[in-house]
Amino acid sequence: MIEVYQSTIYSWDKYYRTNFVNSLNGFKSANLLGSISPTGKSNLSIVSSLVHLGSDPALLGFVCRPTTVPRHTYENLKETGWFTANHVAEDIIRQAHQTSANYPADVSEFAACGLTEVYVQDIPAPFVQEALLRIGLKYEEEYTLKANNTILVVASVQYVCLPGHALESDGLINLEKTKTVAISGLDSYHSTSRLDRFSYAKPDKELRSIG
Amino acid sequence: MIEVYQSTIYSWDKYYRTNFVNSLNGFKSANLLGSISPTGKSNLSIVSSLVHLGSDPALLGFVCRPTTVPRHTYENLKETGWFTANHVAEDIIRQAHQTSANYPADVSEFAACGLTEVYVQDIPAPFVQEALLRIGLKYEEEYTLKANNTILVVASVQYVCLPGHALESDGLINLEKTKTVAISGLDSYHSTSRLDRFSYAKPDKELRSIG
Repeated sequence: MIEVYQSTIYSWDKYYRTNFVNSLNGFKSANLLGSISPTGKSNLSIVSSLVHLGSDPALLGFVCRPTTVPRHTYENLKETGWFTANHVAEDIIRQAHQTSANYPADVSEFAACGLTEVYVQDIPAPFVQEALLRIGLKYEEEYTLKANNTILVVASVQYVCLPGHALESDGLINLEKTKTVAISGLDSYHSTSRLDRFSYAKPDKELRSIG
Repeated sequence: MIEVYQSTIYSWDKYYRTNFVNSLNGFKSANLLGSISPTGKSNLSIVSSLVHLGSDPALLGFVCRPTTVPRHTYENLKETGWFTANHVAEDIIRQAHQTSANYPADVSEFAACGLTEVYVQDIPAPFVQEALLRIGLKYEEEYTLKANNTILVVASVQYVCLPGHALESDGLINLEKTKTVAISGLDSYHSTSRLDRFSYAKPDKELRSIG
């Protein structure tokens, strides 16, 4: 085992440090955020920070740095109040990663990266047709972290679209059936395989495998 | 494809809704948070919300609901200023899940669940010996979300311990070599397999596979 202290992390060059620190929390969710400007320009950007914030109300959050690519997403969702999250599926990882390129605001990453935008009823934000799990999200609030000026955007789940066969009998979504991938670091994409699923844990009671 | 609107989500019973909404963001990181009370009682709890917040400074965050099991972790880290995050490895998923049982504050989940606490120098928080990637974290700040009273805890990376062979030449940590698992929903544990790793994306430039 090797030991790394904070002073060592800050002695590394930016690329090495960024790769290392982005690996630390473990596997990350892989989502394409879709949005549209008030003038009708669609936008798509990959994020690995979409996080569950609560089930009742159903809330998700993501982390946005003003200086990074998702800033067009942020500007759009602030103006329209809406965005979408679309799971990156195994067969679109290359297109998904390409959305992280720094395109000008007037270029749609959908066209530039070869993905198809679709719309649902009154939701003013584009979904990704190639994604098998798509979520319509409404902006709720945000927090700017003093520690690094990063913004946590909080949004409520308004709409979900998924394949019926991926929905298990107790509400769990089988993310292997939606071909959802996980991310590590900045640029590494992973498929998964379920090891086990356990019953609700109680003190002095043996866990059961439930699938 | 099936479509689910917000009103349907709120019509479901709590168990079904919790499973469903916890699946929505995709795969989640799997970490055991270690802490100790000022009177020396160690505590360990699994979280799936550890999220990368920035690399310079190196910051991680996690989401804590005052009413759920990680509250002892929260109380301890507020008192001591420190906690640890330890990647859940494939061979300890059962013990890791068992830490989510609602043990009294005076019971250490290390002993109750069969995991080994170890300490490093002056860090006042226990690490999990069975974890192959361990992080020492210092409390920095917190935000209480108006939307649901959840607390986002922000912490700085002070120390990391990992197997040397898991560290790739450019700083990325190979999370298959640390046997790190991913979580979906509340209780489903997954191993991973790297599909591809891509070069930094630029407009009008083809992505290269870099391992």
